[in-house]
Amino acid sequence: MKLYDFKLAPNPKRVRMFLAEKGIEVPLVQVNTREREQFSDWFRKVNPGCTVPVLELDDSTCIAETVAICRYFEALQPEPPLMGRDAKDQGVVEMWNRRAEIEGFMVAGDVVRNALPMFADRGVPGLPSGVPQIPALAERGKAGMRRFFDKIDARLGETRFLAGDAFTIADITAYITIEFVKRAEVEVPEACGNVRRWVEDIAARPSTSA
Amino acid sequence: MKLYDFKLAPNPKRVRMFLAEKGIEVPLVQVNTREREQFSDWFRKVNPGCTVPVLELDDSTCIAETVAICRYFEALQPEPPLMGRDAKDQGVVEMWNRRAEIEGFMVAGDVVRNALPMFADRGVPGLPSGVPQIPALAERGKAGMRRFFDKIDARLGETRFLAGDAFTIADITAYITIEFVKRAEVEVPEACGNVRRWVEDIAARPSTSA
Repeated sequence: MKLYDFKLAPNPKRVRMFLAEKGIEVPLVQVNTREREQFSDWFRKVNPGCTVPVLELDDSTCIAETVAICRYFEALQPEPPLMGRDAKDQGVVEMWNRRAEIEGFMVAGDVVRNALPMFADRGVPGLPSGVPQIPALAERGKAGMRRFFDKIDARLGETRFLAGDAFTIADITAYITIEFVKRAEVEVPEACGNVRRWVEDIAARPSTSA
Repeated sequence: MKLYDFKLAPNPKRVRMFLAEKGIEVPLVQVNTREREQFSDWFRKVNPGCTVPVLELDDSTCIAETVAICRYFEALQPEPPLMGRDAKDQGVVEMWNRRAEIEGFMVAGDVVRNALPMFADRGVPGLPSGVPQIPALAERGKAGMRRFFDKIDARLGETRFLAGDAFTIADITAYITIEFVKRAEVEVPEACGNVRRWVEDIAARPSTSA
């Protein structure tokens, strides 16, 4: 088994944090997306979608998509549970992880990919060129990030972690979102005290240095 | 238990198809999003995010987000499995469901919400107003849909269903994507014969009329 990874990209870090919380070690293969290695012939054979992370199993099955890789490890080694124990827990964790992804992580991606010069002509992940940036989408995304911060601030005023009392994959997604969007100089607002308390709490976990 | 639903919206239909495949019946409560009922005071108490579907459990826990609701029922009643049996299956199903969502369903949403007059000033789900459409995003989305059709056409040339030999949630997501994007007059290209064969195959399942 090996994990195709890139130390500087946000999605691979979500998987590394997940594995660190589980205490699982997997050999890593770096795919330098800053040097466009995800578009190389060798990597297209691993993932024609040209994105990292990808988990390659010993039978050569390749599992792409961050949460799909996490799902595999959750089923393989349920402890500690990061995606919920019983049906209700699993539903609630999935809800908060999806909110963190759809209203946080993906919106951060809209901002970063449509604002930063390094993504000029590469507005969509997995495509080497030919997709111009849409500045209006970066602006829409910045407004979306403010709504996201307010939403999780309200939630974190009621519960210690996003999905409730326990740390889960939803916290990983939201934490990496906040790290990711800093690249476009978007920060947690001063007014979101609950988010700031929670960020400090998460940052103290050893898994954040994975 | 009850499911807040709207018969004419694509996400609630994903859940209804999932339940029909499992043979599970849940009382439905209609929330007419064409008449903006998702923004009403009574529904904001169910889901402050103002989206359907939402599952309300008997202990009054509300689970929003389509796949989170499916996850709950998959854990509650694993047969027939629609999200994979063992760890590898679960990873592969999650990968294809996410590709169908991120590269299909969400891109279809970009097209529909940024092109159709009914969403003028409502370019983002869950917000009653103040988000102008971005025509360039609808155009980007149309190009994305062509790539999506080509991607699943290649896959469906190798396997009967998207995640392999068995029907799964990934097929539901992709099928509803194709129904959804027709609203913007985007159709499966003639050249995608495998997708057309698969659409006929899925359309013959009783769950599609759920």
